[in-house]
Amino acid sequence: MKCTVCKGPAVIDIRRHNANFCSEHFLRLCRDQVAKAIKDFEMLRPDERALVAVSGGKDSLAVWDILLELGYQADGLYLGLGIGDYSDASGEMARAFASARGLHLVEIDLPTDHGFDIPTGARAARRVPCSACGLSKRHLFDEAAREGGYDVVVTGHNLDDEAAVLFGNVLHWQTDYLGRQLPVLPARHGFPRKVKPLVRLGEREMAAYCVLRNIDYIVEECPMAAGNKHLGYKEALNAIEATSPGSKHDFYFGFLARASAHFTTEAEAEQQELHPCGRCGAPTPGEVCAFCRLAERATAVPVSLGRRAEASR
Amino acid sequence: MKCTVCKGPAVIDIRRHNANFCSEHFLRLCRDQVAKAIKDFEMLRPDERALVAVSGGKDSLAVWDILLELGYQADGLYLGLGIGDYSDASGEMARAFASARGLHLVEIDLPTDHGFDIPTGARAARRVPCSACGLSKRHLFDEAAREGGYDVVVTGHNLDDEAAVLFGNVLHWQTDYLGRQLPVLPARHGFPRKVKPLVRLGEREMAAYCVLRNIDYIVEECPMAAGNKHLGYKEALNAIEATSPGSKHDFYFGFLARASAHFTTEAEAEQQELHPCGRCGAPTPGEVCAFCRLAERATAVPVSLGRRAEASR
Repeated sequence: MKCTVCKGPAVIDIRRHNANFCSEHFLRLCRDQVAKAIKDFEMLRPDERALVAVSGGKDSLAVWDILLELGYQADGLYLGLGIGDYSDASGEMARAFASARGLHLVEIDLPTDHGFDIPTGARAARRVPCSACGLSKRHLFDEAAREGGYDVVVTGHNLDDEAAVLFGNVLHWQTDYLGRQLPVLPARHGFPRKVKPLVRLGEREMAAYCVLRNIDYIVEECPMAAGNKHLGYKEALNAIEATSPGSKHDFYFGFLARASAHFTTEAEAEQQELHPCGRCGAPTPGEVCAFCRLAERATAVPVSLGRRAEASR
Repeated sequence: MKCTVCKGPAVIDIRRHNANFCSEHFLRLCRDQVAKAIKDFEMLRPDERALVAVSGGKDSLAVWDILLELGYQADGLYLGLGIGDYSDASGEMARAFASARGLHLVEIDLPTDHGFDIPTGARAARRVPCSACGLSKRHLFDEAAREGGYDVVVTGHNLDDEAAVLFGNVLHWQTDYLGRQLPVLPARHGFPRKVKPLVRLGEREMAAYCVLRNIDYIVEECPMAAGNKHLGYKEALNAIEATSPGSKHDFYFGFLARASAHFTTEAEAEQQELHPCGRCGAPTPGEVCAFCRLAERATAVPVSLGRRAEASR
């Protein structure tokens, strides 16, 4: 197997590109794909400050590494979610990556700072763990970006992630979600801009990127995610991709090019109704945002109204 | 396992309905589901004449049987496609069903009447066999319905078929196909109305229906379809359905309720450009319709322009 670029020995084949790459040209491909995504979707400018949501997994560490390689200003944000050994190990990976490179890693610990962990929060709110976790992460990323004066929150969602989320949204025809499923969500209503620079790269490529760049990452999936629907959607798409390489890419980018705009009305309609949470000031369609309600149930101690709203203004 | 309706011994469970049925109540369920589809989508009136496209498989024989049970006027149309033993066996099933019940079965034989079979046609036109076959069937169904003065063409597409076609259209975001993927296509531009009364019933239910009604059908899939993408889409959806019963139903009916209308503009735009084929008079976006071009290549004898156009007026 020879590198399609230099004809040297290849270390990876990418079937959807019908090409093989040596280490050097594979790393260049990854950087080029991220640069292309940033350019095509106007994600980020070099003068802006980015906050990368870092889980300690391959995707978030790779995107942080690539952004720095491309010359962007990027700090990291690690959220301790209190998911036992998994959280301990993932936090260590994030810290080791940052300290070895002299990078700034902001840390928020859900149990210490908010008095509950994800397993407890999910049980108390009677939510699926991934749902309680997702809403907590979104909330805390937004809050940390606002408080730290960052222009943009970067997440490590890759093509496999986005295709699987799209598949779930399409299976249920969640037209409001479909209208918002974009690689860039512009800043508005007090939310920072959110960008996904890895949308042109797959899961397998991100693992290879970390191996070739000697980035240690947590290989295990979160134990609370086992058997969730998202993983089922990934498996279904993997079966399609195996027969027709490029299917995931065409599915996701075809959606962006030809279908996404059909659903913006639904998404806009929902966006109009946001106003500040009475407790923390975050934009919400209700009186109190979903995170504050979750936190209240999980700690069973009513948070006093107005306490944080003041701080966030 | 007890019948959810009468508590007698059940012969089948339907997980997406969370219910079990004895033979009598299962057959009633099938008829009720077809009646509901016909009513909800205004498919067919008792005073109209329907032509059922009969392949000799479970779906087409079942839909013919159910329409007659429900009191509709329905003749059958069998197309001999020249696919070796498979066509011989499927034709026998269709004829046996019709003759045992004294029904009228129109027969068209592609090799006899048009001088080519599907394997030859596909090779000559360099098309995937399923593509050459699909376009030939659509053309010949339409033509037979017009010539026989039928109001509507009925096909046996079931929920599994429609969900898999939808999945394929969504994977490639074929927005013009998405705008037309409806259980009823109204008559226009010289095409008869087309309806799919089995959209509320799955593949497994149709097999059970035939067994319980003593309908002999050809069990084998068409040998030319082996490994095609449509079967891959079915498998992917089956994996999702196994974990979340009702997923296919929600995918297809959610599409009809909340997404289909978003794509009508694209479908309408394509429909506007149809005019009669210079050879056979069938509506086509080109000078000569796809079937006449396929037939010309397959027989390598140019069909004289205008010969059939006159006959069809």
